[in-house]
Amino acid sequence: MACEYRVKRRVEFADTDMAGIVHFSKFFQYMESCEHEFFRSIGLSVHVDDGKQSAGWPRVHAECDYFSPLKFEEEFEIHMQIKEIRSKSISCEYHFTKLNDEDEQKDVAKGLLTLVYVTYNKADGQFKAAQIPDDILDKIDVA
Amino acid sequence: MACEYRVKRRVEFADTDMAGIVHFSKFFQYMESCEHEFFRSIGLSVHVDDGKQSAGWPRVHAECDYFSPLKFEEEFEIHMQIKEIRSKSISCEYHFTKLNDEDEQKDVAKGLLTLVYVTYNKADGQFKAAQIPDDILDKIDVA
Amino acid sequence: MACEYRVKRRVEFADTDMAGIVHFSKFFQYMESCEHEFFRSIGLSVHVDDGKQSAGWPRVHAECDYFSPLKFEEEFEIHMQIKEIRSKSISCEYHFTKLNDEDEQKDVAKGLLTLVYVTYNKADGQFKAAQIPDDILDKIDVA
Amino acid sequence: MACEYRVKRRVEFADTDMAGIVHFSKFFQYMESCEHEFFRSIGLSVHVDDGKQSAGWPRVHAECDYFSPLKFEEEFEIHMQIKEIRSKSISCEYHFTKLNDEDEQKDVAKGLLTLVYVTYNKADGQFKAAQIPDDILDKIDVA
Repeated sequence: MACEYRVKRRVEFADTDMAGIVHFSKFFQYMESCEHEFFRSIGLSVHVDDGKQSAGWPRVHAECDYFSPLKFEEEFEIHMQIKEIRSKSISCEYHFTKLNDEDEQKDVAKGLLTLVYVTYNKADGQFKAAQIPDDILDKIDVA
Repeated sequence: MACEYRVKRRVEFADTDMAGIVHFSKFFQYMESCEHEFFRSIGLSVHVDDGKQSAGWPRVHAECDYFSPLKFEEEFEIHMQIKEIRSKSISCEYHFTKLNDEDEQKDVAKGLLTLVYVTYNKADGQFKAAQIPDDILDKIDVA
Repeated sequence: MACEYRVKRRVEFADTDMAGIVHFSKFFQYMESCEHEFFRSIGLSVHVDDGKQSAGWPRVHAECDYFSPLKFEEEFEIHMQIKEIRSKSISCEYHFTKLNDEDEQKDVAKGLLTLVYVTYNKADGQFKAAQIPDDILDKIDVA
Repeated sequence: MACEYRVKRRVEFADTDMAGIVHFSKFFQYMESCEHEFFRSIGLSVHVDDGKQSAGWPRVHAECDYFSPLKFEEEFEIHMQIKEIRSKSISCEYHFTKLNDEDEQKDVAKGLLTLVYVTYNKADGQFKAAQIPDDILDKIDVA
């Protein structure tokens, strides 16, 4: 049972804005990417498609508190933890930290995403929230 | 004194992801863009630069609740309202709605951003929170 | 028969990078967005989906020459012209200009996209180049 | 003397569009990111800033030919090669390939960027093309 995941990244040029720092909206893409690596690490994909129907995890809530800016080429860690598992959704927390010159960790941001398990019927174009399948529930746990 | 702003947009192709809907991180760029149009509408820029120092509004908090997906080419409205003005920061709320076929409004999402007024010294590369200048405070109000 | 289109835009904050100018990759999204408005203006969508099959216009070639940077909040015009129509593809040219303080136009960039008409079969996940349908050919022409 | 670089990436969800494939504009960000890793690998940064002046490598030309789509979670390699070095600019070529199920490489795309060495004076906001400094020229070569 997996409940957390850590990933290291480096700020890319296209992530920055004219203030010279990572654009605040980019943190949500970082969170999502970390979560997808987590799912892959336990043998699951966040997006399953059998031709007629696909299933995925759209977000119903996203938030982030920003403590300190990230600049171009800086390396940082994202630490994701599952905080809550309900019948059709899960909530995950994300801590962003960077190592400074003295090797001390510095808080950068803290985020939260709530993901709903959804099936998408291609014929009628409808999204529907659904029970999280057991083969997924068997592999994840609250941190 | 201005306290709110409305802008209409259409979903662009590059805003969508493989689920066929607007990527959740994109809503934060929509909010930001609406806020910048608001500032321009009252004769202010969100980014002032005199060569030595620049001033701007980095976000310390961002959140969004998603009620219904937006698809490619759909038109929607963002309604921004200033909810709180403090000495160094302001909080703004954003309602996303789209018109459906029967001309009824449909809730899409509701977001919140907290912006801190910050000066950036180019010589030392430091960002500092600062009092919001009077020429800005004179033009904005809580909705 | 339509052969060209013009659209005006303003540089958004999220379009810029830490060099303070529009990121070079963003110009390709601007071109695409202009082209989509062109298709809408003649009653066509660039993406048609009947549940089982979708059709669209993926790019097989994209290029851009950059003459002068675009900065935050600057307004510019994109002028798109259809340069060539073949049985399965079309090529479009895009001129980016901005108005300077003296109301003279300034060249910003010139781009070129080659679009192939493609059908996508959802059951087998395959993309195939196809003849451009007559109802589209009837509406477009070379500039 | 370095003349080429290889990097492996995996397609992230936010890189895809509603056609289920990597958006064509994203390939330019992939190229740029590969080039920045190349510069870092030889001890250089693509963006140097001493407070008063910064130097960087804006693009004057970018192009890409697309042979085969990249989908979510697929892994691919970018192979960058320096093709030409002039007094103020360099041109780099980028081959995108993915490994298919039978471990054979599949061509995805081929790109080209021309980068100009530019200094940016913060006081007057002007960009100027400049001779590539010797400490850079000493480290790079044509492939």
